[in-house]
Amino acid sequence: MKIVVIYYSRSGTTKKMAEIIYDELKNNKADVDIFPVSEIKPEQLLEYKGIIIGSPTYYGTLSGEMKTFIDLTVSFHGKLDGKAGGAFSSAANLAGGNETTILSIIEAMLIHGMITQGDSKGDHYGPVAVTTVDQRCETNCRRFAQRFISLVEKLA
Amino acid sequence: MKIVVIYYSRSGTTKKMAEIIYDELKNNKADVDIFPVSEIKPEQLLEYKGIIIGSPTYYGTLSGEMKTFIDLTVSFHGKLDGKAGGAFSSAANLAGGNETTILSIIEAMLIHGMITQGDSKGDHYGPVAVTTVDQRCETNCRRFAQRFISLVEKLA
Amino acid sequence: MKIVVIYYSRSGTTKKMAEIIYDELKNNKADVDIFPVSEIKPEQLLEYKGIIIGSPTYYGTLSGEMKTFIDLTVSFHGKLDGKAGGAFSSAANLAGGNETTILSIIEAMLIHGMITQGDSKGDHYGPVAVTTVDQRCETNCRRFAQRFISLVEKLA
Amino acid sequence: MKIVVIYYSRSGTTKKMAEIIYDELKNNKADVDIFPVSEIKPEQLLEYKGIIIGSPTYYGTLSGEMKTFIDLTVSFHGKLDGKAGGAFSSAANLAGGNETTILSIIEAMLIHGMITQGDSKGDHYGPVAVTTVDQRCETNCRRFAQRFISLVEKLA
Repeated sequence: MKIVVIYYSRSGTTKKMAEIIYDELKNNKADVDIFPVSEIKPEQLLEYKGIIIGSPTYYGTLSGEMKTFIDLTVSFHGKLDGKAGGAFSSAANLAGGNETTILSIIEAMLIHGMITQGDSKGDHYGPVAVTTVDQRCETNCRRFAQRFISLVEKLA
Repeated sequence: MKIVVIYYSRSGTTKKMAEIIYDELKNNKADVDIFPVSEIKPEQLLEYKGIIIGSPTYYGTLSGEMKTFIDLTVSFHGKLDGKAGGAFSSAANLAGGNETTILSIIEAMLIHGMITQGDSKGDHYGPVAVTTVDQRCETNCRRFAQRFISLVEKLA
Repeated sequence: MKIVVIYYSRSGTTKKMAEIIYDELKNNKADVDIFPVSEIKPEQLLEYKGIIIGSPTYYGTLSGEMKTFIDLTVSFHGKLDGKAGGAFSSAANLAGGNETTILSIIEAMLIHGMITQGDSKGDHYGPVAVTTVDQRCETNCRRFAQRFISLVEKLA
Repeated sequence: MKIVVIYYSRSGTTKKMAEIIYDELKNNKADVDIFPVSEIKPEQLLEYKGIIIGSPTYYGTLSGEMKTFIDLTVSFHGKLDGKAGGAFSSAANLAGGNETTILSIIEAMLIHGMITQGDSKGDHYGPVAVTTVDQRCETNCRRFAQRFISLVEKLA
């Protein structure tokens, strides 16, 4: 049940979210790796059952670096079909594009034929930080990680 | 493994898609029901493991009738969490809002904590008819139904 | 330069936002009307140069009542082309669908051929209340109203 | 009334659309430039009253190259506020993400405070090619260019 957390972060906020999610996945005995997007090759995605991607909110969608990474996955298009996917984002402002950024990642996952789950209680599309990783955000990141493990287990 | 197909249709195109999806689900031995949205009560959703919703493309999102139905599900918010969801749409024109209509249904499902899957080969977010239910559309509807059964089985 | 503010509100939060926007439009000498969606007929939209629509965040898109109203505008499709449009939303939670709700209204406006403007400083897609109409929200509503007047004036 | 058309194209389809839009803008006496995204610096956007951006549909949003270009505009965030914006996209398949790609560009424009217009008759969010630039697509591109000039003129 291998899971990977991939993030792009300039200010450090998205990285901090990634680390909390990674920590909670490990706490729950998942076999998990974590990479900044610059240190993973697209083909490595094939090894994992679950893929979690985080990006800051840049103009309403995922960062150019993360999008460039996703675009390269076209070389093995179809091979991620059926894997579990999840997304998270950090933003400078409330109502500043965090939801559309998460959805831009989810759209890519759906086009890959991946499987994703929302949350009826926490941040619905995926965890979001506004300005900073406060307690609310950390709780949502941990909750997201726990639910993601359940999803990957169900799909195994 | 009960599945329900719910649709709203005025011209008959969305209904035709719903019937093809229903037919393919039955062909594959699913225990499946089909309802126009006017003939099902929101609470009935609780009986099903998989929920498929289809709407014509009206101004880029699901029809008012279907949205009103979904809004009523708030009375048991949280109880659809973990169920499988899928969406389809018919549209009068290419680039006329069919993708955003499907996503408007998927967004509601994610907010309910439901689980959805895209398709790396067929219509990526869900099957779409443009103007009419042609062979391309029928193929995509049948493919969608087959994949949906697999998803529901995995989650069982 | 007639402008209309239309809202749907159950808890009163969206209504409060609508009234602030209305107030600021009036303060700036706009000829403005305000209606709950139940008290305006779709055809009345034809009288206005600018149309502002607000809805609570219900499952990630505009409320069924507002969507039903918008669906009815199909009877004069094409006649809103070139008018100015803006949207706002209230939500129970941060990351709970407020952005996608605003975009669901903007998508309808674009399909009508309407003209819309984001904001590089305030809430980018349109003003948002989270839980309550706090000072942040009021400031964004007033800023939105001022910018909307400028847009309508430019298009006159 | 300077307008710029910026595109990213690998297969040539988006480039062909860009050239048709450019041609129609020139036919209508606009002062227009055209650049592949690799040959324009972000700061050059400041010279133009109207900005049109085209991208192929890669996993449901604009290409990584175009997104990276847009991300760089943050260095003069706020200075595009009030300019006119439009978007177009090419896609390999119907229902393959073309609408969400156009919206990903429009979302960036709204976050910049730009002004955009849909179309009640043509491709609603912006012109789309599916597989190839056929007559339908060319007509929509020319119509889009004509309407874009009107928008820029109104805002002047």
